[in-house]
Amino acid sequence: MKYRLLIAYRGGGYAGWQRQSNAVAVQQKVEEALAQVLSRKVVIHGSGRTDTGVHAAAQVAHLEQPEPVVLDSLVHGANHFLPEDIRVLRADPIGDDFHARKSAVAKEYRYRMSRCRVLSPLAAPFSIRIDPAVDLDSMRAAAQLLLGRHDFTAFAASGGAHRDPRRRILEAEWLERDEALVFRVLGEGFLRGMVRALAGTLLEVGQGRRTVEQFGELLVGAPRSAAGPNAPPHGLVLWQVFYPPELTVPGEATLPSGQPGSR
Amino acid sequence: MKYRLLIAYRGGGYAGWQRQSNAVAVQQKVEEALAQVLSRKVVIHGSGRTDTGVHAAAQVAHLEQPEPVVLDSLVHGANHFLPEDIRVLRADPIGDDFHARKSAVAKEYRYRMSRCRVLSPLAAPFSIRIDPAVDLDSMRAAAQLLLGRHDFTAFAASGGAHRDPRRRILEAEWLERDEALVFRVLGEGFLRGMVRALAGTLLEVGQGRRTVEQFGELLVGAPRSAAGPNAPPHGLVLWQVFYPPELTVPGEATLPSGQPGSR
Repeated sequence: MKYRLLIAYRGGGYAGWQRQSNAVAVQQKVEEALAQVLSRKVVIHGSGRTDTGVHAAAQVAHLEQPEPVVLDSLVHGANHFLPEDIRVLRADPIGDDFHARKSAVAKEYRYRMSRCRVLSPLAAPFSIRIDPAVDLDSMRAAAQLLLGRHDFTAFAASGGAHRDPRRRILEAEWLERDEALVFRVLGEGFLRGMVRALAGTLLEVGQGRRTVEQFGELLVGAPRSAAGPNAPPHGLVLWQVFYPPELTVPGEATLPSGQPGSR
Repeated sequence: MKYRLLIAYRGGGYAGWQRQSNAVAVQQKVEEALAQVLSRKVVIHGSGRTDTGVHAAAQVAHLEQPEPVVLDSLVHGANHFLPEDIRVLRADPIGDDFHARKSAVAKEYRYRMSRCRVLSPLAAPFSIRIDPAVDLDSMRAAAQLLLGRHDFTAFAASGGAHRDPRRRILEAEWLERDEALVFRVLGEGFLRGMVRALAGTLLEVGQGRRTVEQFGELLVGAPRSAAGPNAPPHGLVLWQVFYPPELTVPGEATLPSGQPGSR
């Protein structure tokens, strides 16, 4: 039996999603909780890593399990043993050919920036503060340039060995949410550190520190040093992971038809 | 000189707004921070208390100060000494006849309830979980009954000595925000514990545990025991405090004209 887990977490207390030898990661906490529930050693496979401090509204992982389990027991049992900043939102049986990372066709991230003089403690856990005077039109024009397939070397964390630095972006926009601007980006895949580097560099466009044209020139394989800094991790949320329709569980969104990843 | 302070806080770590002898309150933390900035003992006056664990997006307080101060220094100096879950958002000079509590003409509160099986850690600090199957139409019909002037004894915390238990509600509605329902209520004033008791009792209407008519019968001075339980504090936010136009600072909202409190 294979099960698909939907997992949410606040990233502040963890060294990212992926299990590490020298720091506590979210994957480790989930595996330890499931081990308590299932009374055996458990290994889960996530859709991909998230960096230290980055949040997830809906990370996806899968679990191989010799015997069928009661879904509610799995969810509530895991949550009983998990710290309050990690929750298994749901568990679903899924076909044997499902793999949380390999089957994923797209991911959506959101990065939140609050336009204010002082950041409210109600927003602070999930947002950074930016100058209210940023030029949203420029930031929107630059985001539009992301659509399609580009060489994102300029936005890849050094140290990440990317065989192919090209990725296809399906949607990219700035949403206005109360006083906040939210950078929403949907892509077939992302290089390590890419969304935070995009957010930090788009912000420089909004601040007038680089033009929309200069931003566009980064998308042809410019070196990392040519782009702006990574925006801080706590503004970023892994929002959703998309799978092909035949591997999507009831109530979960699929990609809009016509998108390359939608089959 | 008199100054008006706009203050936001996450209430989880505090015994409410009002200074207490036996517990740490938000007022005390702000007074201590201002004392460091101004090098003197400081007393501030808030618009009213918030209960233990209740949040504020925009609490208002005033401060009497013998000498003029640089506003940015006051704000950033106070925030330097405040814990990260309390922030002074802005400070403005205000007329001598301003009093944060006595001048207030209305307050707005919001109570958030997430419709889900498991509450996401991203929502959990500011929301409670409720059954997705609640009857929103009934909850909306019951909220409509709140409009106007009623005897809210059924929703007043016992122990609060209210000389007059009548209060006028100006607006009451349920907003839909993603998966959450948000009870938004604007009134000329509220009894102690009233918004949480209203939220808890309106939820019982949505759960089919009492009818809209039975809810209405509580608004004529029924005893506290006739209404439902207080909803937990962490779902509640003091959203805004309204003042008459002549005592409103630039960029802050006034009541829509035509409202009783708008003069």
